[in-house]
Amino acid sequence: MQLVRSVSQAKKIIASIKKRGMKIGLVPTMGYLHEGHLSLVRIARKKCDFLVVSVFVNPTQFGPEEDFRKYPRDLKRDLRLLKLEGVDLVFYPSVSQMYPDGFRTYVEVVEWSRLLCGASRPIHFRGVTTVVLKFFNIVQPDIAVFGSKDFQQAVIIKKMVKELNLNVRIVTGRIVRESDGLAMSSRNKYLSEKERKNAAVLYQSLKSVKRAYKKGLRKPRPAVEMMAKMIEQKGGGIDYIQTVDKDTLEPVKKLKKGTLIAVAVFFGRTRLIDNILL
Amino acid sequence: MQLVRSVSQAKKIIASIKKRGMKIGLVPTMGYLHEGHLSLVRIARKKCDFLVVSVFVNPTQFGPEEDFRKYPRDLKRDLRLLKLEGVDLVFYPSVSQMYPDGFRTYVEVVEWSRLLCGASRPIHFRGVTTVVLKFFNIVQPDIAVFGSKDFQQAVIIKKMVKELNLNVRIVTGRIVRESDGLAMSSRNKYLSEKERKNAAVLYQSLKSVKRAYKKGLRKPRPAVEMMAKMIEQKGGGIDYIQTVDKDTLEPVKKLKKGTLIAVAVFFGRTRLIDNILL
Repeated sequence: MQLVRSVSQAKKIIASIKKRGMKIGLVPTMGYLHEGHLSLVRIARKKCDFLVVSVFVNPTQFGPEEDFRKYPRDLKRDLRLLKLEGVDLVFYPSVSQMYPDGFRTYVEVVEWSRLLCGASRPIHFRGVTTVVLKFFNIVQPDIAVFGSKDFQQAVIIKKMVKELNLNVRIVTGRIVRESDGLAMSSRNKYLSEKERKNAAVLYQSLKSVKRAYKKGLRKPRPAVEMMAKMIEQKGGGIDYIQTVDKDTLEPVKKLKKGTLIAVAVFFGRTRLIDNILL
Repeated sequence: MQLVRSVSQAKKIIASIKKRGMKIGLVPTMGYLHEGHLSLVRIARKKCDFLVVSVFVNPTQFGPEEDFRKYPRDLKRDLRLLKLEGVDLVFYPSVSQMYPDGFRTYVEVVEWSRLLCGASRPIHFRGVTTVVLKFFNIVQPDIAVFGSKDFQQAVIIKKMVKELNLNVRIVTGRIVRESDGLAMSSRNKYLSEKERKNAAVLYQSLKSVKRAYKKGLRKPRPAVEMMAKMIEQKGGGIDYIQTVDKDTLEPVKKLKKGTLIAVAVFFGRTRLIDNILL
């Protein structure tokens, strides 16, 4: 497994891999890997000949008041885990490699970037699409694998790929959960013991709505209210609970197959997201 | 010479060309070709094995009050000219091929897209970079050739290529002029006989400044004033006259080697641009 820090070095290696006609896979991550990431790596490993994992805490997707600086990092551990998964190349660029002074080129899936998480994080998705497009151009993957906890991210990236005519297939992996149902996230580390325990309500509330839907509930509003009540009882501060179409992210008038219930909640100062598909 | 209208067909052909290890060149145009375009085609022809010229009047780079609808078009003539230049593939997509319903992914070189021409045409460069990036992704050129009349466009595209880590080399061709010095442009067709005659003052005024610079003029302001006077005497309505650094597009305090004098002027309702490098 090679560790590459410079864009030019990565491009050189990729060019030689391309020449040999090998199929390239990419899993972009911000590091501090958990089983969620590793499940994506395993999916990608099966679908390509040369597997690249990027580890980069991307500053352009963090707002000025957000946790860019304190976002957890542990490269040594990440490398150990990735080696065990048979990764071929870890791309670990510095911020200045990715964003040289005077950087000013951004790609944005407009409007969609302001929905859901984008309402409270207005520059977030612009940062995500920009860095992902850069990774695509550097690594030139045939396939790239993204997680489903960040459902909106995956939808937006698929939209970008289609509309910019990129030659990469986007694959999504399932949400991996702790034993109490909390979706795995590097940010779970921020939670106090009590917050961690209470945070399990996120998935419980999503499952409650899905059960109610299976029993006949079709109105979005009572579904949202049911979730809000459960979450607030556990001290969660709701950023949003929304019922949207899984492909267009537009609010639905009726719950149905293909409706995504998406939620973002603060426990203390930690913002967690989760979702379930009806 | 093949004429291809669909993105998927173009991609298929490009994939097979790539497999054969051929070097691909691209000249993006809006058609209604003149000697300026053809000079770019000739440059590209020498530098690649497989030459693609795109002909597409790109709606996203026109403002709502601009000339998208009346922009001149003559595909038959364009095809005849391109065939004579030994072009391999003409990509001539429809608007709906390039921008399917619900299109919302844009790339922008922020701030630079609002300088010079971008001040009066705020969405113009966002449209240019978006369509050019799409062409790059479809055609996957090793080199792409752009004209220098649209100097800001070339600077912005080079910046995009660098910052998005694209694998294409941008080459620029010289401005091709009519015998009286007017830079060739598809929009010259809009000019009345009188406006056409008066429009020659654009290049004359640029040359006057360059002569004055060679004689020792270093202050931008008198240079701009000299040009404005000449242009206004011929009935031109000045959009801007600016003296900027050729790489950063920032206004200079002193004229020097590498300063770009750029001008945009209305003759009647027709907006013309030109520039000269000191």
